[in-house]
Amino acid sequence: MKRRDFIRGAAAGAVAAGTGLATAPAQAARKIKWKMVTTWPKNFPGLGTGANYLAELIEEMSGGRIQVKVFGATELVPAFEVFDAVSRGTAQLGHGAAYYWKGKSEAAQFFTAVPFGLTAQEMNAWLYHGGGMDLWKEVYAPFGLVPAAAGNTGVQMGGWFNKEINSVADLEGLKMRIPGLGGEVLSRAGGTPVSLPGGEIFPSLQSGAIDATEWVGPYNDLAFGLYKAAKYYYYPGWHEPGSTMECMINKEALEALDPDLQSVVKNACRVANQDMLADFTARNNAALETLVTEHKVELRRFPDDVLSKLKTLSDEVMAEVAAKDPLNQKIFDSFRKFRDQSVEWSRLAEQAYLNARNG
Amino acid sequence: MKRRDFIRGAAAGAVAAGTGLATAPAQAARKIKWKMVTTWPKNFPGLGTGANYLAELIEEMSGGRIQVKVFGATELVPAFEVFDAVSRGTAQLGHGAAYYWKGKSEAAQFFTAVPFGLTAQEMNAWLYHGGGMDLWKEVYAPFGLVPAAAGNTGVQMGGWFNKEINSVADLEGLKMRIPGLGGEVLSRAGGTPVSLPGGEIFPSLQSGAIDATEWVGPYNDLAFGLYKAAKYYYYPGWHEPGSTMECMINKEALEALDPDLQSVVKNACRVANQDMLADFTARNNAALETLVTEHKVELRRFPDDVLSKLKTLSDEVMAEVAAKDPLNQKIFDSFRKFRDQSVEWSRLAEQAYLNARNG
Repeated sequence: MKRRDFIRGAAAGAVAAGTGLATAPAQAARKIKWKMVTTWPKNFPGLGTGANYLAELIEEMSGGRIQVKVFGATELVPAFEVFDAVSRGTAQLGHGAAYYWKGKSEAAQFFTAVPFGLTAQEMNAWLYHGGGMDLWKEVYAPFGLVPAAAGNTGVQMGGWFNKEINSVADLEGLKMRIPGLGGEVLSRAGGTPVSLPGGEIFPSLQSGAIDATEWVGPYNDLAFGLYKAAKYYYYPGWHEPGSTMECMINKEALEALDPDLQSVVKNACRVANQDMLADFTARNNAALETLVTEHKVELRRFPDDVLSKLKTLSDEVMAEVAAKDPLNQKIFDSFRKFRDQSVEWSRLAEQAYLNARNG
Repeated sequence: MKRRDFIRGAAAGAVAAGTGLATAPAQAARKIKWKMVTTWPKNFPGLGTGANYLAELIEEMSGGRIQVKVFGATELVPAFEVFDAVSRGTAQLGHGAAYYWKGKSEAAQFFTAVPFGLTAQEMNAWLYHGGGMDLWKEVYAPFGLVPAAAGNTGVQMGGWFNKEINSVADLEGLKMRIPGLGGEVLSRAGGTPVSLPGGEIFPSLQSGAIDATEWVGPYNDLAFGLYKAAKYYYYPGWHEPGSTMECMINKEALEALDPDLQSVVKNACRVANQDMLADFTARNNAALETLVTEHKVELRRFPDDVLSKLKTLSDEVMAEVAAKDPLNQKIFDSFRKFRDQSVEWSRLAEQAYLNARNG
């Protein structure tokens, strides 16, 4: 952790030497010590390292006035207790993904990924300039939490299969690891969705306990060695087109900070949000080349009629979730309106451009 | 400027009350006063407001220790003297776009937009995790400047025309406002590129002094009323697929700051970089709807053979610019390798997903 050492050293040095125009205060003497619990294994590529980076940013920008200790899943609390731990103040920060908390509020799922929903760029536009962030705050407020977008994987891959998917009938009876709303959609297509933590995916696929799995994309999937246990690598990731990772902040802890430090914490999340997407994009580029050229992975595109059917089922699932309560409906209405506009604009922009450039 | 008032008030309040755990220092008494010169008209939508937002972020996160006064183009120096003004320390910050400085270094153009180059998401990946930022620093170092990405327009539109473009022959003799590398490409296709500042575009198009123009996209083009002076609105913006805006920082001024404030300035640029893209994406969505439904704008896609020819010419132009000196070549080699990988990955990711979702 060279970077962190540098930051600590630099902060101490500033106090000792006071060389700057606006000198550092007695701040270093009274450090605020925060804990960040995460849903990821410690230092997990992209996701765990993204959480580490967020902690470093907060320390660096606060000149060491806030120090953040990061805990991997199970180090302080289990992965799926992160929400409760930050809610009750056991930790001040939590890094995860909102769709893990659908047991608290089904509406939370709209803030991670929606099948056939928004890409990373569109998610950020909806959250920051389309009213999405205010809705997310409304969902988390009863739990004493303030949400922030703090990472994005970009468009994911559709998953690893040992048989070709040539029609919707090939999904029937398929036992596939696929969580969240995507799993619900698969279920309606006749498949059997299974929820498994990351570490159990590879052995389950290898042993035949599951027939197929999705995980993230080339970067993370290469790291897990999934190409060793499945023959076909399908795209696109219709179920997670730009998954937003989150940092939830204990509201009381946040509001006890001076205004500049509150701003540092919130904006560090914004930097981390963009940085993780850049990280995934750059590493997916390189990992895809490795998978195809070194490991001879066979890429397959889902047929049009399969994608079309999954899209119809997705719209049904979303509408049902929305209808369950007024807050769900309010969020879905905002999301859907933004998605409909995004479809029109991206047809002329990203989609038309990529079709022209990529051939 | 409600936001700015809030920040100033909050910083002052923190000093008076000292309620935080780590109390605010005597900082407020010794403010660092910086100037930001920009290439945009003051408060210009998206671009000028993005520069304002960056200034506010620096003040907010520094607790008022740094105050930044923003100058629109010509208020302190003319638009195209921003680079020199920051280089010599007349201002500490400059907001613009690197391709304006090709007179200083042709290599600078690679850091804004390259025809058939990277999208916004890919640009950020190249800059932050693909070696791009280090190369950009190398280009600006001789001028005593530190560059930062500080905004992005996303994919632009191809432009406004009063006749249909059905073949490459329709570009011959066409007098079109299109700056930078895109203009050079048009010239090789037989057109006549013209460079005009934003404010002169509408009258020039209306009077017939130019036959066609590109500007940015629905949000900015609607604001200029370009639909009143041209019949067809073409896409995609092959010449600017994700233009990065910049904040250049005077190196000496940056290094005189305490480490935490250096981090605040650099990371404020990162926040502004992401925020402008979100702003453009959300507003383009809405503005496109207005252009089509209210103003009955006719959308046209450039034909495949026109795009294909422009792509071939673009590759020729890039290769020639690269060959002019070793630094250009080094940057182009890095950029091209990253673009080639991005083409492969985006085929499976953004492109395949948008084709499936948008139909």
